[in-house]
Amino acid sequence: MADDTDDILLEEKDSYALDDSLRGQVRRAVLDDDVAAIDRLMEPLHPADVADLLEQISAAERESLLQLWSTGIDGEVLSELEEGLREEVIAFLPSHVLAEAVRELDSDDVVDLVEYMEDAQQAAILDALDEADRAAVEEALSYPEDSAGRLMQREVVRAPEHWTVGEMIDHLRHHKADLPEQFYHIILVDPRMKPTGYVTLGRMLSTAREVELNQITEDSFRPIPATQPEEEVAYAFNQYHLISAPVVDDDGRLVGVITIDDAMIVQDAEAEEDILRLAGVGEGGLNDRVLETTKQRFPWLAVNLVTAILASLVIAQFEAAIAQIVALAVLMPIVASMGGNAGTQSLTVAVRAIATKDLTRSNLMRVVLREAGVGLINGLIFAVVMGLVGLVWFGSPMLGGVIAAAMVINLLVAGLAGILVPVVLDRLGVDPALASGAFVTTVTDVVGFFAFLGLAVLLLI
Amino acid sequence: MADDTDDILLEEKDSYALDDSLRGQVRRAVLDDDVAAIDRLMEPLHPADVADLLEQISAAERESLLQLWSTGIDGEVLSELEEGLREEVIAFLPSHVLAEAVRELDSDDVVDLVEYMEDAQQAAILDALDEADRAAVEEALSYPEDSAGRLMQREVVRAPEHWTVGEMIDHLRHHKADLPEQFYHIILVDPRMKPTGYVTLGRMLSTAREVELNQITEDSFRPIPATQPEEEVAYAFNQYHLISAPVVDDDGRLVGVITIDDAMIVQDAEAEEDILRLAGVGEGGLNDRVLETTKQRFPWLAVNLVTAILASLVIAQFEAAIAQIVALAVLMPIVASMGGNAGTQSLTVAVRAIATKDLTRSNLMRVVLREAGVGLINGLIFAVVMGLVGLVWFGSPMLGGVIAAAMVINLLVAGLAGILVPVVLDRLGVDPALASGAFVTTVTDVVGFFAFLGLAVLLLI
Repeated sequence: MADDTDDILLEEKDSYALDDSLRGQVRRAVLDDDVAAIDRLMEPLHPADVADLLEQISAAERESLLQLWSTGIDGEVLSELEEGLREEVIAFLPSHVLAEAVRELDSDDVVDLVEYMEDAQQAAILDALDEADRAAVEEALSYPEDSAGRLMQREVVRAPEHWTVGEMIDHLRHHKADLPEQFYHIILVDPRMKPTGYVTLGRMLSTAREVELNQITEDSFRPIPATQPEEEVAYAFNQYHLISAPVVDDDGRLVGVITIDDAMIVQDAEAEEDILRLAGVGEGGLNDRVLETTKQRFPWLAVNLVTAILASLVIAQFEAAIAQIVALAVLMPIVASMGGNAGTQSLTVAVRAIATKDLTRSNLMRVVLREAGVGLINGLIFAVVMGLVGLVWFGSPMLGGVIAAAMVINLLVAGLAGILVPVVLDRLGVDPALASGAFVTTVTDVVGFFAFLGLAVLLLI
Repeated sequence: MADDTDDILLEEKDSYALDDSLRGQVRRAVLDDDVAAIDRLMEPLHPADVADLLEQISAAERESLLQLWSTGIDGEVLSELEEGLREEVIAFLPSHVLAEAVRELDSDDVVDLVEYMEDAQQAAILDALDEADRAAVEEALSYPEDSAGRLMQREVVRAPEHWTVGEMIDHLRHHKADLPEQFYHIILVDPRMKPTGYVTLGRMLSTAREVELNQITEDSFRPIPATQPEEEVAYAFNQYHLISAPVVDDDGRLVGVITIDDAMIVQDAEAEEDILRLAGVGEGGLNDRVLETTKQRFPWLAVNLVTAILASLVIAQFEAAIAQIVALAVLMPIVASMGGNAGTQSLTVAVRAIATKDLTRSNLMRVVLREAGVGLINGLIFAVVMGLVGLVWFGSPMLGGVIAAAMVINLLVAGLAGILVPVVLDRLGVDPALASGAFVTTVTDVVGFFAFLGLAVLLLI
């Protein structure tokens, strides 16, 4: 077990993931230049776990480990590494090791590996592939970024429609070496290579040899255009519980297949992107360096500064009132803060509902009314609470009334802005996850300060 | 196409999802009591799309549609409906229709349907099942909520280890009727029913009949304990690219199988939960009513009120200073707001890194230092900007200096709190997504107001 001294914060309580003990042993072996121990410890690890290990140790440890580890890194580990680290690790590898690693991969994994590389590095890796594989990767790269064409694998198991189960099984046995590592369906094609249906392996295995494949196709057949955006592909897999789906070109001809594991990765990445964008973090992993991370976070903070200054300009209009009643300065952030939080709640629900296609024209008005209702009710409750706080704290019923009224107004506005801002942004083609937060908090800050201080001027001064 | 009058906000630009035109036609058919049109429109829809349609129309339209639609709802539609609506829809259905619908489902889907129902309703549905299915569902319900045991399906295709490919294929052909709808592997078991390996259908199909199954098993075999929490199951599927995995009881005996589509749903739900929790929205769908939604959002707003009052108490300590220099009241929200945003950025990255197991003891210190570095650099940049704003706006270099210093302090604290708060909460067994936001913004509000107003008192008064 790892020593207790740095046991202050994170406990390893998980069933999967690397345990601290193993990580500690690897780090010690690296420190001791103990090649035998490194090989022994690394050998049983799944490529995904090797990648995690490389991500979690320091850059210096990573460099030593890669130099000492004799069996060395394979293509699958490279695929599993997060993008930022991949290039660092690739730069370490002698070109023959890299070439070897890449040759093992399926075409979709090679595409995933090279698509965001600089041209020179990409060319070096493509050169390591044999002719057919390189052509496959290059064709995939000709499809738009984040499209089905980039996601698909070219290795497809297909058959003419009129084949029987027996013919197909014999064919598979004879072409064993050419089969993709994983496949779940036989795709039936007509003479012009257009997919016409698919057969699950389970169905085929339980059907007599003489039955034709076109007798046992599945209902849920949905070819995917190669240019379709990958989030639409993920949506289709999720919505229709697909396991694999054929990909077709503009002429409807079969060019590849997408499997559910690829769709799951996209789905995961989309949700992650939404979470980070909602928090004003564009992208970036845990291994990005300080300057990179600073650059990623700066734009949102800059936007927030502008909105905060806007709010301050509102406050500045009421300097005279604040000079007269300092309690206003004490209480005003409460109104703004409550509005900001209520707005964030509404907008998050709205952003997700747009992403999952649950919010449509037919239920928009109902949802808007609901958000208004929720804002109003919560506004009234907190108005009573804050009215009492204002009264007790500052002994002024009028001040209590002012903050109560401002609270109702701001929470109602927060609910409406929280739903309408993302909907309008989506309609304008802007990702609502990226920009809604700034707009909504500007609205709730400005309205919050203005309502509270404005009512104070009207009623108290 | 739908008429343009309500085209103000949401445009349908998606490849999947229901289009407005279809939704409009169904609503019109419901309005006209046109049974033939309803049947014609609904017939080609995938159960998932039927469920979406039911979710997106109003409660009154839903009631009419369910009464008019002659072929009626099937079990899969019930499975696809969001939980809140399911009970409403089930309440509409005559019991023989409901029984029929439920009998079509696999055991895992029945479990999913009934697990959160009230006892009476649950019993009614279980009674509709035949003996064997009911026993299967009841056993699944005996496992903890959100565990592998609830997620698995009991229908497993298994074989003794010594069987050959030919024996297996013959067995499948003879037991066609008993096979689950979808299966991807044959699970090999020893005489005590312990799983010892698995064979993909693709591998089996491409292997000669006389080869024993135990010669062609996969490396990535990972049995899952039935009591394992479902998020760990989803992690394993994602990390190790599993398609299906056997589930074992405490004695290591095979009790079921989990497939990737179930894991994908869990993964999706977990990410969704994190997003909503980070925004202070516990749960809830778009179809919850106003009062339900108000109740869901209230607790977080109440917590926020407490933290906002805490921040106000800090401000109250400086009333005299504010009365003397009203500009302090104008500028102070900027410092707090910038800190809140920077803190939210850090905490979101930290919460996600904890969820994906990327943040561990071995890289914690590096990540903390990085967040401190990012906070410091962004703090310095915005200090210069705000120093200038303060100087230009209020003509006071000292005021500019005070806000600049407070900005550096608060952004540094925001970075540290943003990472340490979620890590400590996780260590204490609290979901960091749920509680970090309140803690971090309390810290940044209190520190922001205190640093700014405190420095002002020291340097300006």
